Amino acid sequence: MNRREFLIRSAGGLAAATTGRLASIAAAQQATGTKPVRLGVVGLGNRGTHLLRLALAVPGVQVKAVCDLNEDNINRAAEIVQKAQGSEPVRYSKAPDDYSAMVKRDDIDAVLIATPTKWHCPMAIEAMKAGKHVGSEVPAGFQLQELHDLVKTKEATGRRYMLLENYLYMRHIMTVWNMVRAGVFGEPYYAECAYLHDCRFMLFKQDGSLDWWGDWAANNFGSDYPTHAMGPVSKWMALNEGDRMEYCTSMMTSPRVLKQYAVKKYGADSPQGKIDCALGEFVSTQIHTVKGRVIRLDYDVNSPRPAVLPYMIQGTKGLYDSRHGVYVEEEGKGEKWDNLQKHQEQYDHAYWKRDAESAQKAGHGGGDFFAVRDFIEMVRQDREPWIDVYDAASWSVLYWCSRESIANRSKTVDVPDFTSGRWKDADWRADNHRPA
Amino acid sequence: MNRREFLIRSAGGLAAATTGRLASIAAAQQATGTKPVRLGVVGLGNRGTHLLRLALAVPGVQVKAVCDLNEDNINRAAEIVQKAQGSEPVRYSKAPDDYSAMVKRDDIDAVLIATPTKWHCPMAIEAMKAGKHVGSEVPAGFQLQELHDLVKTKEATGRRYMLLENYLYMRHIMTVWNMVRAGVFGEPYYAECAYLHDCRFMLFKQDGSLDWWGDWAANNFGSDYPTHAMGPVSKWMALNEGDRMEYCTSMMTSPRVLKQYAVKKYGADSPQGKIDCALGEFVSTQIHTVKGRVIRLDYDVNSPRPAVLPYMIQGTKGLYDSRHGVYVEEEGKGEKWDNLQKHQEQYDHAYWKRDAESAQKAGHGGGDFFAVRDFIEMVRQDREPWIDVYDAASWSVLYWCSRESIANRSKTVDVPDFTSGRWKDADWRADNHRPA
Repeated sequence: MNRREFLIRSAGGLAAATTGRLASIAAAQQATGTKPVRLGVVGLGNRGTHLLRLALAVPGVQVKAVCDLNEDNINRAAEIVQKAQGSEPVRYSKAPDDYSAMVKRDDIDAVLIATPTKWHCPMAIEAMKAGKHVGSEVPAGFQLQELHDLVKTKEATGRRYMLLENYLYMRHIMTVWNMVRAGVFGEPYYAECAYLHDCRFMLFKQDGSLDWWGDWAANNFGSDYPTHAMGPVSKWMALNEGDRMEYCTSMMTSPRVLKQYAVKKYGADSPQGKIDCALGEFVSTQIHTVKGRVIRLDYDVNSPRPAVLPYMIQGTKGLYDSRHGVYVEEEGKGEKWDNLQKHQEQYDHAYWKRDAESAQKAGHGGGDFFAVRDFIEMVRQDREPWIDVYDAASWSVLYWCSRESIANRSKTVDVPDFTSGRWKDADWRADNHRPA
Repeated sequence: MNRREFLIRSAGGLAAATTGRLASIAAAQQATGTKPVRLGVVGLGNRGTHLLRLALAVPGVQVKAVCDLNEDNINRAAEIVQKAQGSEPVRYSKAPDDYSAMVKRDDIDAVLIATPTKWHCPMAIEAMKAGKHVGSEVPAGFQLQELHDLVKTKEATGRRYMLLENYLYMRHIMTVWNMVRAGVFGEPYYAECAYLHDCRFMLFKQDGSLDWWGDWAANNFGSDYPTHAMGPVSKWMALNEGDRMEYCTSMMTSPRVLKQYAVKKYGADSPQGKIDCALGEFVSTQIHTVKGRVIRLDYDVNSPRPAVLPYMIQGTKGLYDSRHGVYVEEEGKGEKWDNLQKHQEQYDHAYWKRDAESAQKAGHGGGDFFAVRDFIEMVRQDREPWIDVYDAASWSVLYWCSRESIANRSKTVDVPDFTSGRWKDADWRADNHRPA
């Protein structure tokens, strides 16, 4: 809990905060109102197209330009924009450096990036250097150096950067966030999160060649998609605000299933059947914080299994485990799990109370709706977002950390501090936007 | 799968095995029949007393001697024995070296050990040196050296040693064991197991002093109760039979809850409230095998939470997860969990088919019944047990490994090989007893 939240929670503080900082924030929102937000969008595959539609639905948004080297993608996007706002966006689809041309336009405020991951960092950096704010799909990047560069560029340019981590906004995640902040579970000290989702169908294109994701998995290994899992847990534990991830270890099972999958699909003698995939099935990473708290981050996109996205947080008074429910210690109550639903009304987040209907239509448990809206508001208000570049870098770098550990017999790897020590002050981000 | 199991499973092999080795085993059992098994029992607290009753119920068992320094315990035990077999056992309860006197008796075949853990190894070693077989409560021991000594003594004396790991015999555990051996899940490569059980009530005696367990937790840390979790997973993965645990890392949350518990119960100024407990709440250990398989072993006996004992095993064709059920990949079936019950009839273990009723009466999900019976049969047949000294030592040493790792910033720790390399042969224990 940081100072601002403490103020808000305590009775006297609420009045003080309302007349003070909160009032000024409300005033700022009032002032910006539906001030136009002009976007360029890059990467218009399925995901980018979905985000494009959501962005266009936010009042005041104008999509000025779209960028994708695939002609079908760009045509589809242009049509969607034309239909929504009555004017065609400018198309950037000819040469690889078309993106550079787009970010130099002086009629866009921000760039929305939904390309394959390896372009996230370079494109975000280029956009900020060109004076544009950035909303980036997850993860922020793969490599240690590019994440450092991302943070440095953000700091040097003063632009805003938000990671579009949609899972953070799911209703049960935000409800538990409210419960944690209300002290229901006491001090949280242990958490689990995982992305367990059989994604083998994404490895090959219809023509049998490796998709960008398959190509990545064939040549790299580690926890390369950590933010859906880490985001919620990081916010529940208020990481980077008084505590931070200090070191981690990671373990991976040797690759077995992907080979078997390719052989079955294309035959043992096919080029696909001969690929020796670098990514094993199960990757388990354990993270230790400066304050002696532990987080487990699991990842498996290859095993034959139903998808499960478990989240768990244990505190000194009780726990939430998405596989079981809620337990809060109480004299004479016994060891009984409650359904989270029982706490839903009391701890439902204001976002959901106000906009559940619109959110639920938007996909990914409503997360996409709020993520895009917060991104637009970041641009409109020119204000640091909830999921800032420090969260983005510290969650995303877990891929690099896990790879280092796995490659070296699970040795301990230090998690970089992207905040330059500012994490020690629990309140250093008190002026950031925070969903309320 | 080892050679013997393969033979049994294949159609032709079944006939061969039946007329061959299986027949000879059956003959051996026939020959020993209900030959008397004469026991000395040490440690007659609640647990030891429970095991004593179960042992007395097995045909042919005679309890010749009982040993415990607590007078109430020894009197209760003597009464139980008198009532069951019509004759008093000899009591050893006066001096600490009374145990040495008991194991030297020439009218006992084996010793059943149910003392606090720190005595398990020394007592087992002394019993074997005195020519007695041993059944030991879990874990086998705490320290690296004593576990090595245990194995060496067992090998030098030729006596039999069985770890009474009851969880292995629970019905769902044995059903899944059958499913794994039948190849339902393909090749297993990842497993999870945990002992998550709020045991704070066990820390202090009624007079407010630390119980042996509380004293241990106050001064030691690590995964000190690993066998209930590891036993099932180890058998499912056939560890020590073609693969073995090679290295591990471990992480622990800093102690928070136990202090809080003692302060609440006895006050901040009480001696109890001033204890700084060494054992943190959540201990998570990751284990890597020689064949690139991974096991996660979790442990938490301090956190306020309902008890859960989750087990999970993932193979190349599907998985079992006690929190969700069973999934086996099948064309067009979709991502649907089945209840384990659906497979119960087909894969129910012979032990349970024959003796479910007696087992269920005996406690710990029936595990105690079969564990004690297998121990008695080990003695009666003078035959290596299913849960032998190598399993016992390799599971128990995970406490020492986890402590080493936690104390050194989660560094990688080699798991000792107690089999002197014999694990490489999947069949080296083919003559051991195996529940069938």
